[in-house]
Amino acid sequence: MDRIVTELPRKRWNAIGDRMSKVIVVTGAANSIGRSTCRELALAGHRVYVSTRDANGQNAHGFEATGAETDKPGIDVRTLAFDVGSEASVNAAIETIVAENDRLDVIVHNARQVVYGPTEAFTPEQLAELYDINVLSAQRLNRAALPQLRKQGQGLLIWITSSCARGGAVPFLGSYASSKAAMDALALGYAGELARWGIETSIFVPSALGPGHYVRSGRPTDTIRAEEYADGPTANLSEIALSGVAQLSQKDRTPQDVGRAIADVVDMPFGQRPLRVHFGPDDDGAAAVDATANRARTELLRRIGLEDILAPTVIT
Amino acid sequence: MDRIVTELPRKRWNAIGDRMSKVIVVTGAANSIGRSTCRELALAGHRVYVSTRDANGQNAHGFEATGAETDKPGIDVRTLAFDVGSEASVNAAIETIVAENDRLDVIVHNARQVVYGPTEAFTPEQLAELYDINVLSAQRLNRAALPQLRKQGQGLLIWITSSCARGGAVPFLGSYASSKAAMDALALGYAGELARWGIETSIFVPSALGPGHYVRSGRPTDTIRAEEYADGPTANLSEIALSGVAQLSQKDRTPQDVGRAIADVVDMPFGQRPLRVHFGPDDDGAAAVDATANRARTELLRRIGLEDILAPTVIT
Repeated sequence: MDRIVTELPRKRWNAIGDRMSKVIVVTGAANSIGRSTCRELALAGHRVYVSTRDANGQNAHGFEATGAETDKPGIDVRTLAFDVGSEASVNAAIETIVAENDRLDVIVHNARQVVYGPTEAFTPEQLAELYDINVLSAQRLNRAALPQLRKQGQGLLIWITSSCARGGAVPFLGSYASSKAAMDALALGYAGELARWGIETSIFVPSALGPGHYVRSGRPTDTIRAEEYADGPTANLSEIALSGVAQLSQKDRTPQDVGRAIADVVDMPFGQRPLRVHFGPDDDGAAAVDATANRARTELLRRIGLEDILAPTVIT
Repeated sequence: MDRIVTELPRKRWNAIGDRMSKVIVVTGAANSIGRSTCRELALAGHRVYVSTRDANGQNAHGFEATGAETDKPGIDVRTLAFDVGSEASVNAAIETIVAENDRLDVIVHNARQVVYGPTEAFTPEQLAELYDINVLSAQRLNRAALPQLRKQGQGLLIWITSSCARGGAVPFLGSYASSKAAMDALALGYAGELARWGIETSIFVPSALGPGHYVRSGRPTDTIRAEEYADGPTANLSEIALSGVAQLSQKDRTPQDVGRAIADVVDMPFGQRPLRVHFGPDDDGAAAVDATANRARTELLRRIGLEDILAPTVIT
């Protein structure tokens, strides 16, 4: 089974023996996907923890940050002061969540920084910071939470990567694509290594087309180098790319759809969740790349006698 | 044209108007691929610069490090004291090379650290160091050298990535795969952004199968966490993977073949070099993944009106 889907069934699953209300931690709760994810998860009846660092402007329960209706009954979004950039802070947050619930069911790795500009104009320090936010944040959270998830023998990791790491290679997204490719490969590595511990993996791949990646993104700090690209033979590269992309994709993928799909996957029965879910207003080829990559991975693991780690072990 | 090859023609090209003897800098010259690359490039008549930091045990011309016959006439391998971990040091080295030659033709990004172990057992600091060696080294060297290559209006970047970033997802290679995926995506980003400056890109993808990645690699620093994987349900994961991989692939890809292929690509006419070259004693699926990824990239760039950046511009 390939476990790759591009469209999810709208029907909510009713898992037998699976806890209907889950304890979930979401990073990057203040970005568009994060807000809709928290909202949809909370509306589905789950208890959602977010960082106050993410959730600027939230009320006592991080509510405005998630965009959910504050008067809705049964909504359970909780803020904790933690910083995914600090190991000690993440460890303390996970300790608090486990102390309050005696468990942790789902992690949504969604913290990210988007950058746009000539790859050469990003200093090594800036790339290191980008990898820290987009990859090492997830590593810190995993290292804090996985001992608990492995002890439980059941859990779900959800990773939000990007299609630009898997095919949609638009100019000036190279640095961002690099960080997201690193995250994607880390997610796949974890998927195989955690399967026997009863931990499932779903990787969400939103399209990197859409104006959001260009308009609301960080820029390279070496502005002199960036100017050289703006003045040289690459002068109109960004303009052509942006107008071409705008014709392909007049809007960003709807964060609400991504959030709902994440909530749907959380509510699917253990062991049946897709390894990858693709989103995008337009096909940038990433789904085809991942389909081939998934076949290659499946075949290789079969050939070396590790077919079992393609799906999580059910530990009873 | 897909510009993906898995076998290169053995015939040496004689480019008209292309300099036959090139000035080349190679990082990671002390590792197996680095040694054979320096040797083959030097034997082909090129002037090769390596770092003394890489080239332990070399004589005044870095010779033993390259494994080339010291009495061969016309061999020109030169050592410079530079450290790809330091921006100032890399900048000084490139200044020296350009001062000595008034040009720099080819960069071979081959510095790397291989690591093997449960992804969870790598500390964030260790991953940051891994990204520094496997990705930021290339970024430092590019930022030092690309102003000169762009000024020349001609140049070649060669990147040595790994099949584990593109399909060959063996357990416990997740951290290494993550760093190599980051490097691969960065290389692709640069390829498109540098094409109009007359700079060509070839990405070499050696197979990650073969015992070298497991026997002679770094280990996670969190040994307590690593022990949990060695004692838990994943106890025999490494053993099964290693014996499975050993049956598929009884030896590493021959470094000599990689080195020769790099020398062949360097000697191909400008604009005709393959975007990707795959190596491996066995097919781990990476070539199929890259073929799909290359089609996706080609189609996307065509659709947004940037077909021209699929190949380097000939600047006369």
